[in-house]
Amino acid sequence: MIDLYTFTTPNGQKASIALEELELPYTVHVVNIAQGEQFRPEFLAINPNNKIPAIVDHSVPGGLKLFESGAILLYLAEKTGRLLPTDPAGKAEVTQWLMFQMGGVGPMLGQLGFFTRYAPTKIPLAIDRYRNESSRILGVLDRHLSGRDYVARAYSVADIALYPWLAAARNFYPELFRSLTGIPQWMERVGARPAVQRGMKVPQLAR
Amino acid sequence: MIDLYTFTTPNGQKASIALEELELPYTVHVVNIAQGEQFRPEFLAINPNNKIPAIVDHSVPGGLKLFESGAILLYLAEKTGRLLPTDPAGKAEVTQWLMFQMGGVGPMLGQLGFFTRYAPTKIPLAIDRYRNESSRILGVLDRHLSGRDYVARAYSVADIALYPWLAAARNFYPELFRSLTGIPQWMERVGARPAVQRGMKVPQLAR
Repeated sequence: MIDLYTFTTPNGQKASIALEELELPYTVHVVNIAQGEQFRPEFLAINPNNKIPAIVDHSVPGGLKLFESGAILLYLAEKTGRLLPTDPAGKAEVTQWLMFQMGGVGPMLGQLGFFTRYAPTKIPLAIDRYRNESSRILGVLDRHLSGRDYVARAYSVADIALYPWLAAARNFYPELFRSLTGIPQWMERVGARPAVQRGMKVPQLAR
Repeated sequence: MIDLYTFTTPNGQKASIALEELELPYTVHVVNIAQGEQFRPEFLAINPNNKIPAIVDHSVPGGLKLFESGAILLYLAEKTGRLLPTDPAGKAEVTQWLMFQMGGVGPMLGQLGFFTRYAPTKIPLAIDRYRNESSRILGVLDRHLSGRDYVARAYSVADIALYPWLAAARNFYPELFRSLTGIPQWMERVGARPAVQRGMKVPQLAR
């Protein structure tokens, strides 16, 4: 059994989509980051970096604690032998686009979100910086996806890493998607998967 | 033989340190990002995301092109069976801290660099945001490293990913390091390695 500590964010959804795809039994623990629950000592004992998602895999003796969504995806893929090729070239291709999400798509869209939605004052220089960089990154991915069904040769953790970030981005910044063609078609393909649909709804919050 | 496309930045140094540690023969190709050489068509054919480092491994039939420093580290480690444990728990631990560098340390210090050193105007809100987040992240790593020799159980690609970023940060923002103890001791240990010293000097630029 796996404990999943998560919240309603793209990084959290990456983990729940992977668990759904891999049909691994898991228990959801809501860490409400809007209420600062990521700073509770019991969560910091799992992730000292106070971020969701994190997992504890109790099938490993002593319980394997793991944080960083990208590391969780690779771990679950290798644990099950799915969603990640085993040949070096195929694996490298998936890892490459997973890192593109971890180091580029996520951080840049995250900063755009901060300066457009949360910052106490609107700072054009910062908004422009992150809007331009987000747009550039989306363009790279859009060209890559044109004519391809998935980010790598087959559906993989790279698609899972990117999908929730692009879903959130299209929701908040539809203007960034207007001239794109490869990404929207790919989003339709990935978003039609039942496991993706289930994973995107985790966690369900009490009302 | 491996072709390494790189420049004098922490992400570039990650790749050259790994190649030096693993004693893999490689040819350095300077991509001068200060002169926009990352936008040349021949480089975009290797990395459409116009960032260094990138490698081409000619030992793979057809030549394996690979970008994203984190993916390069994992690929080289698995290619050689070194710098990355093979047991799932040990591997996950290394991957976790590698992702912490890719998604946290790198992007946040990178944004701090932009707003303190390159932005046309000084924006206190942005500078404070990235200074505070960088300081918080360094604190997390410092506490983790206290009483440990390396980031994970043994020297790994996680140390290699973090070292050049922390070396640059200590150079530009020594005030962020004043109250730290675990990171400076670890930096001394890692920085004493001959392969790290060689890798940090790649590429040598013509004067």
